[in-house]
Amino acid sequence: MYIGFDIGGTNIKAVLVKNRKIIRERIEITPKKSGELFDLISKIKNELVKNINLGQIKGIGFSLAGALDKKRKRMLNSPNMKFLNNKPLKKILERKLKPYPIKIEHDVYCFLLAEKKAGIVKNIKNAFYLTLGTDIGSAFTIDGKIQTGFHGAAGEAGHMIIDVKNNFDLGKLASNKFIKKHLDYNLIKAVDKLKKRDKRAIKVYKKLSLNLGVGIANIINIIDPEMIILSGGITGAKNILLPGIKRMIKKFVISPESKKTKILFSKMNRFGGALGAALLFEPRH
Amino acid sequence: MYIGFDIGGTNIKAVLVKNRKIIRERIEITPKKSGELFDLISKIKNELVKNINLGQIKGIGFSLAGALDKKRKRMLNSPNMKFLNNKPLKKILERKLKPYPIKIEHDVYCFLLAEKKAGIVKNIKNAFYLTLGTDIGSAFTIDGKIQTGFHGAAGEAGHMIIDVKNNFDLGKLASNKFIKKHLDYNLIKAVDKLKKRDKRAIKVYKKLSLNLGVGIANIINIIDPEMIILSGGITGAKNILLPGIKRMIKKFVISPESKKTKILFSKMNRFGGALGAALLFEPRH
Repeated sequence: MYIGFDIGGTNIKAVLVKNRKIIRERIEITPKKSGELFDLISKIKNELVKNINLGQIKGIGFSLAGALDKKRKRMLNSPNMKFLNNKPLKKILERKLKPYPIKIEHDVYCFLLAEKKAGIVKNIKNAFYLTLGTDIGSAFTIDGKIQTGFHGAAGEAGHMIIDVKNNFDLGKLASNKFIKKHLDYNLIKAVDKLKKRDKRAIKVYKKLSLNLGVGIANIINIIDPEMIILSGGITGAKNILLPGIKRMIKKFVISPESKKTKILFSKMNRFGGALGAALLFEPRH
Repeated sequence: MYIGFDIGGTNIKAVLVKNRKIIRERIEITPKKSGELFDLISKIKNELVKNINLGQIKGIGFSLAGALDKKRKRMLNSPNMKFLNNKPLKKILERKLKPYPIKIEHDVYCFLLAEKKAGIVKNIKNAFYLTLGTDIGSAFTIDGKIQTGFHGAAGEAGHMIIDVKNNFDLGKLASNKFIKKHLDYNLIKAVDKLKKRDKRAIKVYKKLSLNLGVGIANIINIIDPEMIILSGGITGAKNILLPGIKRMIKKFVISPESKKTKILFSKMNRFGGALGAALLFEPRH
């Protein structure tokens, strides 16, 4: 059995995992101070292992929003949990959660790992995963292995500049940032408005789908994966997203074969990141 | 010994290779008809093997400008040699050049393979190669292996849209196309003008270097390679190119570590593609 934590700027999600299945889960608000955060993690861990033979717990994995160092020991830059920046996170957690082995990893890596071990990327060698929420995160596999790049920082497709005149990146043009800018309200309300066929919301979402489609066409032209997997709040309106994405792929992808790249939507629930964190202890990512 | 051909829209380059070294070379104008092309290839081959024991020739490789099918048997789309499109190229060459084994591959793959076996990518696991000429081509290695993608079409970074307002791709904004559009003359004259410190030429080249830098920053953010290798006519003015590229990397690459990605210039001469084509017969690309 493994424990997985997904530490986000808003929530902490935690799971106890056995044979790739979640058998216990917890969700809490993320504290704003590091001492409180580590205490809460410790408390959640104790709840998850209640009445369980502690020898069965083989490790605790952490999915983290932010840039990590190459060796996955330290948080370099977390936009939403600045109090963690430059902290030797792995060492702190090892001390706090003794005697369990600890692994820390980038959140999108964990999302993709969950898909790979227990979701739609099983047996797929080349997959590209994008999560569309407050911003855009990404991760990908090549030859069946999740790639972290030479400096440990691959998968920042959200920072791909697609509007060089304004220095706008894909994250700015195809995430919740774009919704907020053009609709003065957030994603949850936008998806609700779309269901009611609100014309303004539909127009903005269609524009977002074209921007996203350009980013995806760029990724296909460069990496040529077997499938693109989309997840996150933005995908709540997939019926509006998909036609725009497909139009841009048809228009900008060069290879006739690659134009057929599958576009799939993740079926993981909100504990996907925590599940992936637990699965960090499995061999072959 | 192997023979390598680099079949471009303008020239055919051919080499005889022994122990990764070129021992004979030929260069000819590319004919405009397929019959003449295949006859010329056959003639060049005969010249290259003159006075050589034919049993020593273990195969003939071809570097081709254009999109190939996944199995590397057929030309799908060659922009400059349309008479080859949809032809079963491998089979035709096997018949024409009996009894030698034939391999065909995308030209940028061959350029990178030459760098990997006999140039600056030796012992490098993750390298991204861009060739900047009439247009932009690219290829890359991950875990030491040149990647061709799921549909055989990876490495089309020249088609990455970076100006979504005008649908302009990197090829349009950072190759000879950009020079021609803004200076009404071509690359060779541009490099000459730059040497004479022509103000207009310098201004256009500086703008090109910023566009190229944005494309390279995008590649670094997504793939995070150890090095970027640049080759082709545009790199004739590397002193002007490099500052613009580095400025954009500093500005747009997210990871502090990846900002340090090496930018190198190829030292291969114009027979690099032909050398790479010959090296297709070596194991482990």
